[in-house]
Amino acid sequence: MKSDVDALMKDRNMDAILVLGDVEHNPPMYYLVGGGHVRGALLLKKRDEAPVLFHNDMERDEAAKSGLKTVSYSKFPITDFIRQAGGNMLVAHALRRQKILLAYGLSAGRIGVYGRVNFSEEFGVMLELAKRLPEVEFIGEYGNDSIVQYARETKNDVEVARIRQMGAVTTTVVGMVKDYLTSCKVREDEVLLKEDGYPLTIGDVKGKISLWLAERGAADVEGTIFAIGRDAGVPHSVGTPEDPITLGKTIVFDIFPAEKGGGYFYDFTRTWSLGYATPEAQAYYDQVKEIYNKVVENLDLNAVFKDYQRMTCEYFEAKGHKSQLNTPAPVEGYVHSIGHGFGLDIHERPSSKLQESDDILRPGVVITIEPGLYYPNEGMGFRIEDSYWVSPDGTIELLAEYPYDFVLEMKKWGK
Amino acid sequence: MKSDVDALMKDRNMDAILVLGDVEHNPPMYYLVGGGHVRGALLLKKRDEAPVLFHNDMERDEAAKSGLKTVSYSKFPITDFIRQAGGNMLVAHALRRQKILLAYGLSAGRIGVYGRVNFSEEFGVMLELAKRLPEVEFIGEYGNDSIVQYARETKNDVEVARIRQMGAVTTTVVGMVKDYLTSCKVREDEVLLKEDGYPLTIGDVKGKISLWLAERGAADVEGTIFAIGRDAGVPHSVGTPEDPITLGKTIVFDIFPAEKGGGYFYDFTRTWSLGYATPEAQAYYDQVKEIYNKVVENLDLNAVFKDYQRMTCEYFEAKGHKSQLNTPAPVEGYVHSIGHGFGLDIHERPSSKLQESDDILRPGVVITIEPGLYYPNEGMGFRIEDSYWVSPDGTIELLAEYPYDFVLEMKKWGK
Repeated sequence: MKSDVDALMKDRNMDAILVLGDVEHNPPMYYLVGGGHVRGALLLKKRDEAPVLFHNDMERDEAAKSGLKTVSYSKFPITDFIRQAGGNMLVAHALRRQKILLAYGLSAGRIGVYGRVNFSEEFGVMLELAKRLPEVEFIGEYGNDSIVQYARETKNDVEVARIRQMGAVTTTVVGMVKDYLTSCKVREDEVLLKEDGYPLTIGDVKGKISLWLAERGAADVEGTIFAIGRDAGVPHSVGTPEDPITLGKTIVFDIFPAEKGGGYFYDFTRTWSLGYATPEAQAYYDQVKEIYNKVVENLDLNAVFKDYQRMTCEYFEAKGHKSQLNTPAPVEGYVHSIGHGFGLDIHERPSSKLQESDDILRPGVVITIEPGLYYPNEGMGFRIEDSYWVSPDGTIELLAEYPYDFVLEMKKWGK
Repeated sequence: MKSDVDALMKDRNMDAILVLGDVEHNPPMYYLVGGGHVRGALLLKKRDEAPVLFHNDMERDEAAKSGLKTVSYSKFPITDFIRQAGGNMLVAHALRRQKILLAYGLSAGRIGVYGRVNFSEEFGVMLELAKRLPEVEFIGEYGNDSIVQYARETKNDVEVARIRQMGAVTTTVVGMVKDYLTSCKVREDEVLLKEDGYPLTIGDVKGKISLWLAERGAADVEGTIFAIGRDAGVPHSVGTPEDPITLGKTIVFDIFPAEKGGGYFYDFTRTWSLGYATPEAQAYYDQVKEIYNKVVENLDLNAVFKDYQRMTCEYFEAKGHKSQLNTPAPVEGYVHSIGHGFGLDIHERPSSKLQESDDILRPGVVITIEPGLYYPNEGMGFRIEDSYWVSPDGTIELLAEYPYDFVLEMKKWGK
């Protein structure tokens, strides 16, 4: 949580952190500022001191909404530094940043640098800055291991309330998609038809999803997976817009919208087969549901997340599927991890990756549980995904409820 | 244009470029790959050779859609490098990147690095990589001056067609907002009312804008400015959601949506006063429109962009307003630049900034022209903005037409 940042800085012997870039769509900055339409900002936080937000003069009102101490860049006019740098913009920005750091007493020490930004420019500026402040060590931290990510891993009540609200939006929209699909007419060849008599396509459905999310203050900023048949068998294939929707094929519907402006996400997946399912598909689905139930029943505060990944791999291998337990990069069977944390990013700590992580379910984590099976060459795929909060008292809260029906009955078919 | 990249690399003595990060919402990567739901990719392009796209195995189908040569990361398994790095993830990724560069013959030379990414991680990886490849100089370039930005500055027919289409979407939605506002009932105190009898707020209008954009395949990823009264007088204030919309106050409506998935933007502003305008506001608006016309009439292929900024500053100063010509950071009067290029970013080359740029209107640039006046303490602001293509034959094309009415007649007021 945000209140952990100073302790984390102390643990890692960091004297300050420097966050670069816009406030929106920039999770570390959004997290520490709290949102607002402020571009090209700079947040400087010394250990055990309040952060200071530097901003362009034109955005002073938006910056002020943060409630942080704010300083306009016009106190450090870039034109002065451009002159001093002979027109070299990388050097000019390095000189300004140097002046800011010195103004805050940071002529030496260890400073972590963060932000989702234009890498080329910031890399160039930081290399120039490092040359000019040889007593400062500027530190880059690995995504999941950074101070900011570590703080963000555990969510407080305010954050969970926002995620829960996005869960409500998500499941509402999923229900609307279900109602829409099952109300469609069906052609003789089992293709769904729109009101205008043309085949309903993946693209049509995705348009409606975007719309229904936007109506509720959410945005599918990272897209939506709505994939049928072979595409459903490739976990991150988002679906082919022109593909018609037909009965009896598996549809993987993975929806992960966020609050507008780059806020909190939700993450959710259902697999559907419209009208009927083949016996083989039903059997696979039942396995996915069985291990989903088993994992969820066993979720526990402070458990090692990847133990659930191992449990899932072992379950699927016992059923004859490949998994990462014994196949390095399987392309069929159970091919991914059991879940991940999320928040301002769709993938955050904790991780359940077998090889990379020993993350535990710390008090306050928000995670997905999402077992799946993928058989692209058989034209099918399956995934069930819900999101859970491991609350500080150990309660495991499902953040949005939604039924697990696999076969959806078509209201206007065969009648 | 993309076809200029090799020549630009030669000019700058670069042997290769390396682009990091997701394909979507990452303009340099999107530009070179052409879109697609591929996360955490790496694009390597040696001079005069075709680019190679490295991707995670799970996203092979999305990567293949690019038409580029693709290579799965599983040929360079991260687990091997994690072992070799003793679990240090920054080092592991640096080792993998080193192996990839060596596999493509890049043990020495100058390599530019690009991408909108998690700075902390990539900074850490690149510092480790640089240690291991001392013969390679890794280069960060200043945003507007980078090879990729320079190539992106001039747009080809395909890109302009996409921008023109976003212009059509934008002006359609602006027309819908106008129709909606002017059809509202008006309370005695000149506040607009919704169908349900409650005051219409900025937040309500913004919800509709998002919705109407989403219906048309566009997204207001960077937000929308819809600001009234004092907020209209602060150029980048996005407006206060709870503020009611009332007659006779200036509304600055700056809308800059992009194609879904992080594609091309459009940029457009109108200023409205509902029902009536004060004489003072009308006089200011007329000045903004007069200099807008004058700038547009004088636009010319290969002209220096900031000459139009100077023209605008001189015009406004002659009318008694402050401008950047003689005031370093004015907070009232004419406080910003006359325009900017845009494309996959909402701000791109060319720049019209007086102090920073000598950019010319090269064949193919897409630019905004957007004079404005701002008087927050008088509770008003004004801006008119349209987007133009300076085509290679010198024709100046307005990319989307829309009327310039300032006072909008209310259909249900005073009747």
